[in-house]
Amino acid sequence: MVHMKLFAGIDLGGTNIKSGLLSRDGKILIEKSVPSEVNAGVDHVLDRMADCVKDSLREAGEGAMIEGVGVGVAGLVEFERGILLEAPNLPGWQRIEVKAELQKRLGMNVVVENDANAAALGEYAYGAGQGATEMLMITLGTGVGGGLILNGKVYHGSIGAAGEFGHMTIQYDGPICCCGRRGCVEAFVGKMGILRNVQEKLKSGRPSLLRIIDVSKRTPKDVSAAAERNDQVALEVLAETGTYLGIGIGNVANLLNIQRVVVGGGVAGAHDFFLESTRESLQKAALRTAADEVEVVKALLGENAGMIGAAYLAMTEQ
Amino acid sequence: MVHMKLFAGIDLGGTNIKSGLLSRDGKILIEKSVPSEVNAGVDHVLDRMADCVKDSLREAGEGAMIEGVGVGVAGLVEFERGILLEAPNLPGWQRIEVKAELQKRLGMNVVVENDANAAALGEYAYGAGQGATEMLMITLGTGVGGGLILNGKVYHGSIGAAGEFGHMTIQYDGPICCCGRRGCVEAFVGKMGILRNVQEKLKSGRPSLLRIIDVSKRTPKDVSAAAERNDQVALEVLAETGTYLGIGIGNVANLLNIQRVVVGGGVAGAHDFFLESTRESLQKAALRTAADEVEVVKALLGENAGMIGAAYLAMTEQ
Repeated sequence: MVHMKLFAGIDLGGTNIKSGLLSRDGKILIEKSVPSEVNAGVDHVLDRMADCVKDSLREAGEGAMIEGVGVGVAGLVEFERGILLEAPNLPGWQRIEVKAELQKRLGMNVVVENDANAAALGEYAYGAGQGATEMLMITLGTGVGGGLILNGKVYHGSIGAAGEFGHMTIQYDGPICCCGRRGCVEAFVGKMGILRNVQEKLKSGRPSLLRIIDVSKRTPKDVSAAAERNDQVALEVLAETGTYLGIGIGNVANLLNIQRVVVGGGVAGAHDFFLESTRESLQKAALRTAADEVEVVKALLGENAGMIGAAYLAMTEQ
Repeated sequence: MVHMKLFAGIDLGGTNIKSGLLSRDGKILIEKSVPSEVNAGVDHVLDRMADCVKDSLREAGEGAMIEGVGVGVAGLVEFERGILLEAPNLPGWQRIEVKAELQKRLGMNVVVENDANAAALGEYAYGAGQGATEMLMITLGTGVGGGLILNGKVYHGSIGAAGEFGHMTIQYDGPICCCGRRGCVEAFVGKMGILRNVQEKLKSGRPSLLRIIDVSKRTPKDVSAAAERNDQVALEVLAETGTYLGIGIGNVANLLNIQRVVVGGGVAGAHDFFLESTRESLQKAALRTAADEVEVVKALLGENAGMIGAAYLAMTEQ
């Protein structure tokens, strides 16, 4: 019988557990998504994660064997020991020995990583970051996440808290951010920043499709949809979002002389409305040498990036 | 005869060549400083650098042997091959094979590094950065230099241009920086930033010792001297300098989760007037986890940091 060596990747979020079995070349052979059921307690969630792996292995059929398991989780991770120190979206998950607990349940090697770092690693290994040994992954959404690949590896920093691109100050007396500080990148390009900018432009009385939607119900998706219909307010807001993003990226380029920035998350399709202004703004914000080296591209792996990166971690960190 | 294994460090600047012979524990046994004479051409300067090493070896006496030579130079360095790609302060130094040229002259192993990186390495190995594997070195002066130690090694980035802390944007519509951009850290805490802030405060008619000095002749040293005499304008300017510096450091702490920031350069003694506000500002600017981990301290090696770091490089990169 031919043995098929596989690697399991798990992306544990507050809502769902996404898991997959990958071959060494990054191909997803089995994919699952089940509700996390975080309210049923830590042990229950750990059991569910383990079950995903066991079920997938069974489905993969005879001859399949799992060489390692990688986990990406939204929180502060102590990488070496695989301990989740804190996780704002997972109630009760404090100092949880995810690595040890899963190893006990599975009898397999387990590696644990922060989910943004896992996503960065996924794009680096099989997505838009391929070939770049110094890379920043930015994930847009309600918040703005970040993950750094330096010298071809996830960069963790002193205690695993590195990569907080979203709370980089680009205007110290700028708009309030959800973190309580002022003028963070997220305060401009996160959900609230985009919607605040829309509202400011509408105040001047300009016509816009966005007026149809009540201010309390507007989302970045609406802005993107309006931009697709050539709404000038929406187009301007998204272009300005790109400009702010480029200033933040310029700071990273100057400090870290990275080769590539992979931008993921956000509303599908919206990237086309802001990435060009991101690139222009970056070219102005960064010093020549750093600016010349850095390329801004769209992420390729979508919501699978974290799960794929977790599996890649299992391949490389045994 | 007992052999004494030594390491040579050279700091090549536009004005002087500083060189030293160090023992493995970082003790400087022989120290030299000669004018660089950059106008006499590249070969001449390379000869002088080699002579410094040879003369020092002779002075060290019988039994002394040099195990390696490290060079720090103000410019963009291609680290692996030891090529100085460009150096704004060294006319004619473009694509100079410093490593190969010095190895030919000396018959010894030579390693070449950017001077700010060498200074960071010096503080890391024997100065205020000891024990911190993730460290930012900031050198204050006319400009604001930076060097990064990550995972205990100099971090170069894609082509050796990393560490540009001084041109991090903290206020995108802020004051013009000498680089042509707006609101860089340097535009606030570099020489011009400090003097601009003084001038703005004096415009309001406030009394200050700094009024005695003509605006065209004022220097940060005057501001520091006035602060020592309890001049309120000077004290405020230096405290605000610290606040701006702390915002920039907060960005680095969030992105890189560093353990230590070593602040060097600037006017001797002035640190006491701004480092406290730097620390306060950093605590506000960085996210809790990152802020808790990072310590801001004064550099310990002064102007020798680059030369010492270059020698350390020779010890560790053979």
